[in-house]
Amino acid sequence: MENLNWSKSEKTIARNAFQAAYRRECAAIAAKLKQMAGFVKEPPDLWQIHDYLTEMKEQTDIKYDYRYSVLISVFANLLNEGWLKESDLAGLHKDKIEAINKLARLRREIWA
Amino acid sequence: MENLNWSKSEKTIARNAFQAAYRRECAAIAAKLKQMAGFVKEPPDLWQIHDYLTEMKEQTDIKYDYRYSVLISVFANLLNEGWLKESDLAGLHKDKIEAINKLARLRREIWA
Repeated sequence: MENLNWSKSEKTIARNAFQAAYRRECAAIAAKLKQMAGFVKEPPDLWQIHDYLTEMKEQTDIKYDYRYSVLISVFANLLNEGWLKESDLAGLHKDKIEAINKLARLRREIWA
Repeated sequence: MENLNWSKSEKTIARNAFQAAYRRECAAIAAKLKQMAGFVKEPPDLWQIHDYLTEMKEQTDIKYDYRYSVLISVFANLLNEGWLKESDLAGLHKDKIEAINKLARLRREIWA
């Protein structure tokens, strides 16, 4: 997969899809943050929010890796997690879409 | 100041005063957090909250140092910052209260 070529228009689609997924996941983290903030009663509750955000920051920094050499794998993962929609990928070459879906399916089967 | 003796009852008063100040400061941080959480529009707004909490965690970890050898200095600082109230110190030996107030006043003068 490292040798797949990404045309200029595909790079634009990929970048938009990547950002859409990232924004969706961050919106979900923000929603959880607001919920947690509403329940702060004691100092430890506050630092629990800090720890939660630290963990989410680390996870998203690792997960959202925009290198073309790993993008098929990244998209397959985001698809399985629900942050990426198949419609976000419209316009990519069918080989890439098939590769993403196949990898996503394989991982679902492994983890089922 | 390192050689001040703290009686058992003074230790209880000091611990309660320290915790009251800590809870007040954490409540203020929580209020600011809720305000920031309400304004999250983009992913960077989310990570700005994380950075804010990291900074507050570091600052409070340093500031809230409950060692009797530094407690007069810690209380003077908390008094100046408004997290500690003079009434929290009621019951401590007057020498300690005077030392705290004197140090707080000196620092205010230096930073004025």
